Amino acid sequence: MVSIPQAWCNAIPALGVTLAPDLPSPRSAPSGITLQIPPSLVRQELTREPSVPIPPAVLERYRQWRPTPLVRAHQLESALGTGCRLYYKYEGGNISGSHKLNTAVAQAYYYHRAGATYLTVGTGAGQWGTAVAAACAMFGMKCRVYMVRSSYEAKPHRRTIMEMLGATVIVSPSSRTAVGRAELHDHPDSTGSLSLALAEALEDTAEPGTLFCTGSGETYSLLHQTVIGLEAQEQLAELGDRADVVIGSLGGGSNFGGLALPFLGAAALGGPAVRCVSVESMACPKLTRGHFAYDFTDASGLAPLQKMYTLGHSFAPPSMHAGGLRYHGTAKLISALYDEGSIDAAAYSQRDVFGSAVLFARTEGTTPAPESAHAIHGATMVAAAADRQGVSRAVVFGVSGHGMFDMAAYRSYLDGTMVDSIVSDEAIARSLADLPPQPAEITSR
Amino acid sequence: MVSIPQAWCNAIPALGVTLAPDLPSPRSAPSGITLQIPPSLVRQELTREPSVPIPPAVLERYRQWRPTPLVRAHQLESALGTGCRLYYKYEGGNISGSHKLNTAVAQAYYYHRAGATYLTVGTGAGQWGTAVAAACAMFGMKCRVYMVRSSYEAKPHRRTIMEMLGATVIVSPSSRTAVGRAELHDHPDSTGSLSLALAEALEDTAEPGTLFCTGSGETYSLLHQTVIGLEAQEQLAELGDRADVVIGSLGGGSNFGGLALPFLGAAALGGPAVRCVSVESMACPKLTRGHFAYDFTDASGLAPLQKMYTLGHSFAPPSMHAGGLRYHGTAKLISALYDEGSIDAAAYSQRDVFGSAVLFARTEGTTPAPESAHAIHGATMVAAAADRQGVSRAVVFGVSGHGMFDMAAYRSYLDGTMVDSIVSDEAIARSLADLPPQPAEITSR
Repeated sequence: MVSIPQAWCNAIPALGVTLAPDLPSPRSAPSGITLQIPPSLVRQELTREPSVPIPPAVLERYRQWRPTPLVRAHQLESALGTGCRLYYKYEGGNISGSHKLNTAVAQAYYYHRAGATYLTVGTGAGQWGTAVAAACAMFGMKCRVYMVRSSYEAKPHRRTIMEMLGATVIVSPSSRTAVGRAELHDHPDSTGSLSLALAEALEDTAEPGTLFCTGSGETYSLLHQTVIGLEAQEQLAELGDRADVVIGSLGGGSNFGGLALPFLGAAALGGPAVRCVSVESMACPKLTRGHFAYDFTDASGLAPLQKMYTLGHSFAPPSMHAGGLRYHGTAKLISALYDEGSIDAAAYSQRDVFGSAVLFARTEGTTPAPESAHAIHGATMVAAAADRQGVSRAVVFGVSGHGMFDMAAYRSYLDGTMVDSIVSDEAIARSLADLPPQPAEITSR
Repeated sequence: MVSIPQAWCNAIPALGVTLAPDLPSPRSAPSGITLQIPPSLVRQELTREPSVPIPPAVLERYRQWRPTPLVRAHQLESALGTGCRLYYKYEGGNISGSHKLNTAVAQAYYYHRAGATYLTVGTGAGQWGTAVAAACAMFGMKCRVYMVRSSYEAKPHRRTIMEMLGATVIVSPSSRTAVGRAELHDHPDSTGSLSLALAEALEDTAEPGTLFCTGSGETYSLLHQTVIGLEAQEQLAELGDRADVVIGSLGGGSNFGGLALPFLGAAALGGPAVRCVSVESMACPKLTRGHFAYDFTDASGLAPLQKMYTLGHSFAPPSMHAGGLRYHGTAKLISALYDEGSIDAAAYSQRDVFGSAVLFARTEGTTPAPESAHAIHGATMVAAAADRQGVSRAVVFGVSGHGMFDMAAYRSYLDGTMVDSIVSDEAIARSLADLPPQPAEITSR
């Protein structure tokens, strides 16, 4: 039986990749607001050890839903008429509904050990908020979630799940914080934004023991997510196969990284060669159409600058259903690997992606999240290309979450009212022009 | 690693239980409408073999989501402070969202083999319709689902899932059938009923190859569901434990039967003794407050009479969130076992049940369906009783489905607006007075 990994995989030393250091933001935070990341997470961000043991208390929680299934997609293969072997790794079977719980549990554990009794968090569509709420419940911590008003009203079920888990959900902008009150004063009808929700959560940490839980795209988040790829490797071996191609959808980078990094690391150490393809949305094509540059990681620009593939922090993607792929940039590590040619990237349109999602649901009996459907569509494209070349490939793709709360999106696809959201060159040029000044020693590389 | 059973378990011979024969309905069906159940299913309904091999084609589909997890509920145990070992078997991880797919796949296979290319089905809240739609997709059959108008409008996501799976969803009453047109003529604003949806589906089988797929409460459905209990037995053995108490929620009987029958059968053959508790809703207490009598299985009364515990076919349960527990009767086999004292029954109120559901979600990280929450509450009650007696018991309970589409119900619980729906003695006496005349040889027993 496949076991849960006992250590996370840090592929950075094996890959020999160097990450450009973060730079202080030229914008200064309001006084009294500081980011307090537990030292254990900071060490994980910087470690050169090839593996990091998973604490027993985190392993115990992982056992509630891990190992997750790796499934040979026989029915999908038949429907496609492909000669490839398709496998999917499914992360939607936990209460948060996605892979995000893998790192939320680890982060909650370290915050708890660092003395936190209360975590605050900002959330847009609600996936990260749900994951942190679930993790806090596991460690007996309280949780306050600032949820963007537009999502709060459009996705009431996400709020209900978080409250079931014991979290307090506060609609953002709120009158609880100075930044929220200022927004309400200036724009009484404000529907909020993720950066504002983050700012409110960051401000609302005055009570002793209350800390702000940063997010899901840090390098330590990618580290925690490697349980996905490590399990997949063992499961493939058990099935007597090995991966030729690994495919994951790309938002902040933790889903793709969690699946691909263990395969990339093993290949770098002399293991079987593997091609890793990250799939983004044509509505937010940071790898395929962005720049590798220092940029703000949030719209308020209070956090340190990071060097990453970005469409510019002022990039506003068009309306799209895969909310988790809307982020303007992606993880430093994924960006560096793409820059050096170690991974591939592809971008697809919304309707093509939903077409593959419906085919997947019909054949494999699992309703994918719109984000995850990007990887599914990528897998069908890779399989079709291999078939044209007359080769059979083992293709492993990640299905990062379930689509139970995305029925309105599927409805619009089935009704034929869904539109493709592809951004213009002009829109991308406009937001890239808004990048902060680049340090000379980096831009001259 | 736990494997998928290769055969279903027929516990009837081991238990030595005799089922009263079905009797023809005194009401006659409209001409041209007949129930055509494939001979293989009829044989399974009557077989005396202790096990029935699962066809390879069904096993192949089961592998998409089976074996399902048996989880030790450590966190729930801690929250309850119990000395008991609590285990839950989770059936919500497939696209239909519940255990119903276990029998839908088997039935679709046999209908397919019997020459069907199109199945029609009636559905209320949508669980059975979703399961049959998924099963039809697996075997390349078409599927037409008649969905009660009130559910069609209140639960649009269920319709979307079924259409994603390729089914045609028709709102009932419809103008497609004579019985639907008559209803629309008499009551243009009719919101429909399950019996009407079943009648429409039954009528709409004129095209060659089109058959009506009966339902989930037949004895062969219980047989198919025994994969749940068989897996649980093996998983417990792997964990070095065995069940003292087995608990399942009771609607039509297939969920409870699927979990409990393998344990009961093993005990009857000299295996370890086990107490099996079926949990119903106080809003629909057929075992705890009904009669063991011949009754109609549907409101139209066209199908044969069955001897079962019933509240009377005219019983209308009060509004409740666990739609799957609203049926007025329960399976013949479960009824006979209860009548002879082989199983126990308990009934709980809606708010108590939701209280345990929220505790379960918070501790175990799984959102249960309201139906399944009845078993969870039952497990907490059994554990509390054991603690009072100072004994430690191994308690296995079934979580038959997920609650992702039941957020409005959870919302009302969290808001404090949920009411308990407990029926009066008068209401039960009224519907029991409406039972059909009983055959003398049965009532004189």
